[in-house]
Amino acid sequence: MRGENSGEDRSEERGDDRRHDKGENSTRRFSIRRAKDAPATLNAAPDELVAAHVTEDLKSVLDGEFVDARSRMRELLATGNFIPRPDFDLEEARAHTTDQLSKVLETGLPHAAFRKDQGGTGDTGYCLTSIEMLGHSDLGLMVKSGVQWGLFGGAVGNLGSERHEQMVKDLINLDALGCFAMTERGHGSDVQNLETTATYDPETQEFIINSPTASSEKWYIGNAARDGRWAAVFAQLFVPGDEESKGVHCLLVRIREDDGSAVEGVHLGDHGYKGGLKGVDNGTLSFNNVRIPREGLLNRFADVDEQGNYSSDIDNPNRRFFTMLGALVRGRVTVGAAAGAAARTALDIGATYANLRRQFAPDDSLPEKRLIEHRWHRLRLIPRIARSYGLQFATNHLISRVHELDQLGLNPAVFTKEQQADQREVEAHAAALKAANTAHATDTIQDMREACGGAGYMAENLLTTLKADSDVFTTFEGDNVVMMQLAAKELMTGFAKELGGLKPMEMVRFGLDSFGTLLRRRTAADAILQNLVDTFSDSDDASLFDPAYQLELLTEREDRMMLSLARRLRAARKLGVEEAAKVVDKAQDHLLAVGWAHVDRIIFEAFVDAESRLESEEGSQVLEQIRDVFFLSCIVDNASWYLEQNLLSGTRTKAARAALNDLCDSLGPWSQVLVDAFGIPSTITNVTMMESYEDMTPKWVSDPSASEQARSEAQR
Amino acid sequence: MRGENSGEDRSEERGDDRRHDKGENSTRRFSIRRAKDAPATLNAAPDELVAAHVTEDLKSVLDGEFVDARSRMRELLATGNFIPRPDFDLEEARAHTTDQLSKVLETGLPHAAFRKDQGGTGDTGYCLTSIEMLGHSDLGLMVKSGVQWGLFGGAVGNLGSERHEQMVKDLINLDALGCFAMTERGHGSDVQNLETTATYDPETQEFIINSPTASSEKWYIGNAARDGRWAAVFAQLFVPGDEESKGVHCLLVRIREDDGSAVEGVHLGDHGYKGGLKGVDNGTLSFNNVRIPREGLLNRFADVDEQGNYSSDIDNPNRRFFTMLGALVRGRVTVGAAAGAAARTALDIGATYANLRRQFAPDDSLPEKRLIEHRWHRLRLIPRIARSYGLQFATNHLISRVHELDQLGLNPAVFTKEQQADQREVEAHAAALKAANTAHATDTIQDMREACGGAGYMAENLLTTLKADSDVFTTFEGDNVVMMQLAAKELMTGFAKELGGLKPMEMVRFGLDSFGTLLRRRTAADAILQNLVDTFSDSDDASLFDPAYQLELLTEREDRMMLSLARRLRAARKLGVEEAAKVVDKAQDHLLAVGWAHVDRIIFEAFVDAESRLESEEGSQVLEQIRDVFFLSCIVDNASWYLEQNLLSGTRTKAARAALNDLCDSLGPWSQVLVDAFGIPSTITNVTMMESYEDMTPKWVSDPSASEQARSEAQR
Repeated sequence: MRGENSGEDRSEERGDDRRHDKGENSTRRFSIRRAKDAPATLNAAPDELVAAHVTEDLKSVLDGEFVDARSRMRELLATGNFIPRPDFDLEEARAHTTDQLSKVLETGLPHAAFRKDQGGTGDTGYCLTSIEMLGHSDLGLMVKSGVQWGLFGGAVGNLGSERHEQMVKDLINLDALGCFAMTERGHGSDVQNLETTATYDPETQEFIINSPTASSEKWYIGNAARDGRWAAVFAQLFVPGDEESKGVHCLLVRIREDDGSAVEGVHLGDHGYKGGLKGVDNGTLSFNNVRIPREGLLNRFADVDEQGNYSSDIDNPNRRFFTMLGALVRGRVTVGAAAGAAARTALDIGATYANLRRQFAPDDSLPEKRLIEHRWHRLRLIPRIARSYGLQFATNHLISRVHELDQLGLNPAVFTKEQQADQREVEAHAAALKAANTAHATDTIQDMREACGGAGYMAENLLTTLKADSDVFTTFEGDNVVMMQLAAKELMTGFAKELGGLKPMEMVRFGLDSFGTLLRRRTAADAILQNLVDTFSDSDDASLFDPAYQLELLTEREDRMMLSLARRLRAARKLGVEEAAKVVDKAQDHLLAVGWAHVDRIIFEAFVDAESRLESEEGSQVLEQIRDVFFLSCIVDNASWYLEQNLLSGTRTKAARAALNDLCDSLGPWSQVLVDAFGIPSTITNVTMMESYEDMTPKWVSDPSASEQARSEAQR
Repeated sequence: MRGENSGEDRSEERGDDRRHDKGENSTRRFSIRRAKDAPATLNAAPDELVAAHVTEDLKSVLDGEFVDARSRMRELLATGNFIPRPDFDLEEARAHTTDQLSKVLETGLPHAAFRKDQGGTGDTGYCLTSIEMLGHSDLGLMVKSGVQWGLFGGAVGNLGSERHEQMVKDLINLDALGCFAMTERGHGSDVQNLETTATYDPETQEFIINSPTASSEKWYIGNAARDGRWAAVFAQLFVPGDEESKGVHCLLVRIREDDGSAVEGVHLGDHGYKGGLKGVDNGTLSFNNVRIPREGLLNRFADVDEQGNYSSDIDNPNRRFFTMLGALVRGRVTVGAAAGAAARTALDIGATYANLRRQFAPDDSLPEKRLIEHRWHRLRLIPRIARSYGLQFATNHLISRVHELDQLGLNPAVFTKEQQADQREVEAHAAALKAANTAHATDTIQDMREACGGAGYMAENLLTTLKADSDVFTTFEGDNVVMMQLAAKELMTGFAKELGGLKPMEMVRFGLDSFGTLLRRRTAADAILQNLVDTFSDSDDASLFDPAYQLELLTEREDRMMLSLARRLRAARKLGVEEAAKVVDKAQDHLLAVGWAHVDRIIFEAFVDAESRLESEEGSQVLEQIRDVFFLSCIVDNASWYLEQNLLSGTRTKAARAALNDLCDSLGPWSQVLVDAFGIPSTITNVTMMESYEDMTPKWVSDPSASEQARSEAQR
């Protein structure tokens, strides 16, 4: 039941080698406008029919490929039972969330997470999009679902083999609730240095699981405090005859008996209250000589035989480790996507309130203005809405790529070089978009809370709950700083590869322009983007509204920052380890800036892609302005860099700021349309504060004339 | 018991006309260094004695004038009973907070809020600083105290007269708990348009209080849902024979009987769960012909006699209204100050954790680095610490000025023109620093939460509670956007007054430079600042580390933005109301930017003032770098503006960024000293996550050798 512009069309259009189909833009039905001037101001009082039409048009591009998942989850959310209850205590909230998992099970979400040969439907995109949709209101339920089916299920399903088939069936059906026991007290994002050990004992053919230090205790583990019966435990693997760890592997460990008591040797703790996510039972796990059968090792990529011999299809231990982690990329994708959904809910609530609430008259002779009629309010709302659009387009694209890779049905261990590269790029984008989406959610939900004033602080209006629940998204499933570094490092690696043929000194002489061209060719994978790049020539009199110039400016930022970073880091090669580490540390802010520049560029490319899919002229006019707002925000936020690089003059950066303001004025009256296009069920967004008080007499007035009467009495 | 560098010294030094003592810097004991080059990197491994000495030195300038209040509250907080409990439900939290008010009563805080003739001690500075200190951990208790003694008490004490003496005594001693019933559902920050009515009935000599519409219901009122027996109700005042309201006045209304039931005609509601502040019982109030005696009018500035004749010492209704509001400026001061205290607690926790926690080794051969040894982490911490220093200096200064004004013992209705101007400037600074402190708290607490990773999200580590509780501070007691506008408007009014002699066309011809000089002379009220201004001549080869050039650059930003705003707004004078309103709306972002530029400048001036009071050379070296960090952050954050204005070249702005990084590197090893100087009791900041796990064996290990044994068995 997917929409007309769905990914199935796209995969036909693009073929398997869609990343290399340069120049074939004849298959595209739509192109995007090459503006020379600022777009015209939109109609300030859009006709109802036009508004409805534009809403639908925008909604269809925002929904992306997996429309069936969106529809199914909208049905579920529309029942109105998926808003966290602020009055529940810890136990009530946990019981409630656990109960609701069975409602999620009915949607088919869990089955989509697993391959057909495992009893699933193998529809990765459906699964990821469904989890994203849960983020619209109940992030606790999203996390609980993510822990059970995405993380625990993903570990068993993707790292296990046919011998774990029954466990997959059980965990899908909630007959086996489990934990994803990776993070330790001493090591969060630094997974390679985990301390838990799994030591093979050939005599009994068991692994012995131990937590040798206090810092090796598994911390923050979802499902650990209350519900989990099993855990997928990440541990250093030791086999007889080798003092060295074989690296971090994952093993299936029983942690609770059926009656809920701890298995012998397993020590369970409860983190209790957190900043939010009251419905998720995070806890601790540690192990004291816990023995599990040899078959507990999730052995898709490496195994230990009865005698204790270790084997793996992947020789390089580093590659083996990252292949295992790569199979878990979906957790990161859903965390970013769900945070994006939460941000959209906040924007829907914020924009709807801004279109209802009146405050301050400019003059006694004039009526009070609606909040949206104040410029500052528009400047808070519209650029954030634009970024939400861009992030959703980019996230949709990422989900489609993860889906496609899964559809290959291949073991990552046998990926071709090209598939490996594809997988790594997907991982880098998952990391970058995880950081970008979650940082955006934190900023946006906070700002919408404030934009709604005191009402925004009342729990019944949902914003504070969204804030508290989404807060940890910036640091879990990989801290954002670590994520952005990971993405930037991957980018730099690709960059170095492109320049592989050049010796260092040649590289230095190569110069800026050539680097730029090289990179642009590499990254502009899509025909329509390639077309923009190819036809753009002169930046001297280019319009800030020309998408080709826009792409040029964003790409140039990424390229130049990468090049200057490469130069700084190259200096470190000649140094000893400690000195080199200092150089790298001093470049950390630069490395992160590369990651953020990259994110801006991929969001922009996703905008262009989405625009080319729009059906209507009116929709295109609106989306063009949203893209302009996104682009101009990037320029304004980084104006000093463009000025310092002499890429833009002060006149230009001032013009960009003025144009951004104008476009926010133009889009202000359309703000309701823009958020309606997110398609969030009104059972979620129609919070108490939307109740109009304007035509309401006070609830308590038995005789409405009483007060008037009292006053006239007094005045007689 | 005040410190050596206390305000008592200062008032002698400055005399009553301290704002005009230009050039008399001979009375200052210390001057500040006029650096020509970047300051030297600090000792990366400070000697323990030196560190302790610098800590004390910095602490003494941070503590400011009202050291006795800080000491007394530190004693109270050190008991460890003032950390909000995440596990309490609404009723438990409310009961707990209400109980704790009596502990606060013992500190003498409430008495300090009232004049000696009212039974208080009249020590405004002691009171405000004490309330600020409560913000270090329990913002609910701070708000509850602020509601009872600051807002309700402030209304009765400052707007009432001798006939309300008993009520003042009762409310100090918690015998009368009360509400500050200003905000209405329909009108928050827009107080002049409140709808509640108080109509005088001469027959019974009563006021009749009414809530004529649903939007006139009093909302978000602290003490209303559970504890309040009384309310200071803001209402439009009507007297016989006049259909027009006399404007908003404040009346004392009984809302609950002794047994807690509602007084007849009073309708009470409960807002229930909020984003935080669980211990504060916010609720709604509305009135249906509630009759109160004539003496209920708080009649310091206006009265109604038995016959219903209205009289006031202040003829201009606008001035009367703002005089009443002005008497309530202390609420705004404490909200900003307490938010600042909460931010400092978060920074203390964040910096301490960053100095303990290790994560990621740059290489297998090297140990894991402490978080503070990662550049990005320093860039998160140090500039925020620097801003906290500056905000505390500026807030201390503001509190001293409020205190001094109160010490005059005058009725604001009889203020001289100069005292009025002083009062208005204090109000503007209270508004600006309310916005600056609360925005800083929101940003800083959030960032520290994230910087502490998963541990930061556990409620036991306090950061999420501080975040949730402080969140509403950005919008209550005046929304930050409204506050910053208010400050900027006051500034523009002052600006226009300075130029009063100039006709519009002359004003235009007057030119930028002259404006700058004029303004600088006006604002650089302090001798040491004046000295900096006077001796600064040439910006072409000035050092970015020269405080005179720093002041020049910050002042220039404020001045130029004010001038360009004045030009834009002047255009509106010729237009009709609706068109003029559009011009004003389009300039809203500009107006807000003026307010922020102003804040940066007054923070900078407070830095210079504080530096001149430091005792030790080592302390000065550290504080100089903190001031440089603050200044360079201002430049980096506004680099595009300086570039566009040709005030700085690209080379300079890049140098500023590099210098900021270097200074953060230099101050990194001093981060613990910097936060220790905040003097926050360790009972607050020594949260669970500070427990070192490094030397700890796992809690559960009965036989520590068990795991080792199992492994060696397996390997044999």
